[in-house]
Amino acid sequence: MEKLQFEAQMKQYAQMAEEALRRFVPQEQDLPEHILYEAMQYSLLAGGKRLRPVLVLAFCSLCGGDVKTVLPAACAIEMVHTYSLIHDDLPCMDNDDFRRGRPSSHKQFGEANALLAGDALLTKAFEIIPACQEAGADAHRVLKAAAILARAAGDHGMVAGQVLDLLNENRSMTAEELMNIDAKKTGAMICAAAGIGCALAGASAEQEQAADCYAKALGLAFQIQDDILDVEGDAETLGKPIGSDVQNDKATYVTLLGLAQSKETVRSLTQQAKQALAPFGEKAGFLCMLADSMAFRQK
Amino acid sequence: MEKLQFEAQMKQYAQMAEEALRRFVPQEQDLPEHILYEAMQYSLLAGGKRLRPVLVLAFCSLCGGDVKTVLPAACAIEMVHTYSLIHDDLPCMDNDDFRRGRPSSHKQFGEANALLAGDALLTKAFEIIPACQEAGADAHRVLKAAAILARAAGDHGMVAGQVLDLLNENRSMTAEELMNIDAKKTGAMICAAAGIGCALAGASAEQEQAADCYAKALGLAFQIQDDILDVEGDAETLGKPIGSDVQNDKATYVTLLGLAQSKETVRSLTQQAKQALAPFGEKAGFLCMLADSMAFRQK
Repeated sequence: MEKLQFEAQMKQYAQMAEEALRRFVPQEQDLPEHILYEAMQYSLLAGGKRLRPVLVLAFCSLCGGDVKTVLPAACAIEMVHTYSLIHDDLPCMDNDDFRRGRPSSHKQFGEANALLAGDALLTKAFEIIPACQEAGADAHRVLKAAAILARAAGDHGMVAGQVLDLLNENRSMTAEELMNIDAKKTGAMICAAAGIGCALAGASAEQEQAADCYAKALGLAFQIQDDILDVEGDAETLGKPIGSDVQNDKATYVTLLGLAQSKETVRSLTQQAKQALAPFGEKAGFLCMLADSMAFRQK
Repeated sequence: MEKLQFEAQMKQYAQMAEEALRRFVPQEQDLPEHILYEAMQYSLLAGGKRLRPVLVLAFCSLCGGDVKTVLPAACAIEMVHTYSLIHDDLPCMDNDDFRRGRPSSHKQFGEANALLAGDALLTKAFEIIPACQEAGADAHRVLKAAAILARAAGDHGMVAGQVLDLLNENRSMTAEELMNIDAKKTGAMICAAAGIGCALAGASAEQEQAADCYAKALGLAFQIQDDILDVEGDAETLGKPIGSDVQNDKATYVTLLGLAQSKETVRSLTQQAKQALAPFGEKAGFLCMLADSMAFRQK
């Protein structure tokens, strides 16, 4: 696949998700509780790569499904991702005043509204997944997709990762321990995106396993690259100050593995991700280029 | 239905839910993140009437369904209810240090763990609903039940009610306005319980509507009775101090309607609830006695 073709496809998927997200969370200026919708929109439509929706759509397409039928699920996973960012920024958690170069939700709307906007987005995700069925997906597959998302987001996945993250604050750890936390905190949702795309397309068990291998490697590479950018990145391009991990005395892959080893690990994980999709042949071109683009991203 | 028979049935339903909740949220002492499970259990297994699971089971049974197939959904709605109590007690919300006579979750486990235990319970609800299908329920009905729960819990239901509640703090309002907030904040989830029981049993549209009328009246009566008990109740029986609404200068049905009118409204709503189930005949005996028992409860 050509670079231009890849970029056009990436843009098309992201735009599909963007438009659908706007439909699912409309402005409700006439409702007395309109501040809730403003807060939901503020975080949901704040830009971002839309990596998780893109993975849902791309894996659905790769396994022969119709992307239109999975669009609600693609939006659902982005809503869950967004809720986790809002709650993560709260004073009792990371206490971050900024997110993507703008005030974080609780700075903009107050703590209670930020908490509730997060709760509402998490709930909305599960309200809209059944719409996949109305869009033509099989009911059994939709239930499977909902279960994948809930499991990845919950006490076996993302929330467990956040608890482990809190427990390990200010405690030295090994790279392996950090990988274990990240596998839950961010990896589980990347795997869920791939898994949901496969499930809704009715993929075979082999296809599901290949997708899972790809997503596991991609998710970890993404996390390591994040840490590399915090050292080597450009604050303006990133939209956030660099060096914050070191300043916060946070264990990162760069501090644990060193910069050279971190870069080498991103390279080898990206290779692993691409190899996992070899059985799909040329059809996997988009997802292979996606893995490359994540490894070489500057923001 | 005899009172003893009613009480035995009530106990049986509550115990079914209780046991299933313990299965769905086990102790995980060997996991490093076991504090998450302790916090989830602490609030989920803190007693309470299990009104919502009982309604799911009773309406399923009334409409000819098998209660075993809906047990996961009955647990799911209790998890959503419990998460809402945990988040409601947080310092940025009602800042309540006690719940059911014990320290609230954030007092016991810290704010971050309470936030995450709430998030995990909300997510778990949607993880376990698909288990209804494995227990024998039809996939389309399970999807419908999940959508009912999410809609009632989210930005059109409970969360909207909480936002409205915050917006109206320290503002005088009419009884009608208070009823509108309560219809969202607590009423929607009571209606969802009835609706989920009906949906999973494959109830007819007429049956669903009768159930909705019953639940609407029951939910409001429940709320008014709460306010009455805050004035007339016994602190020891209630497990919380009385008079807290007046002390907090909170708008209640008693302050807005007066005590006599509040009691009369509970009586008439209970009557409405029972009348809505008249088409079911004697089979609705349990749910009619449930409405009476809620109206005359002392805690």
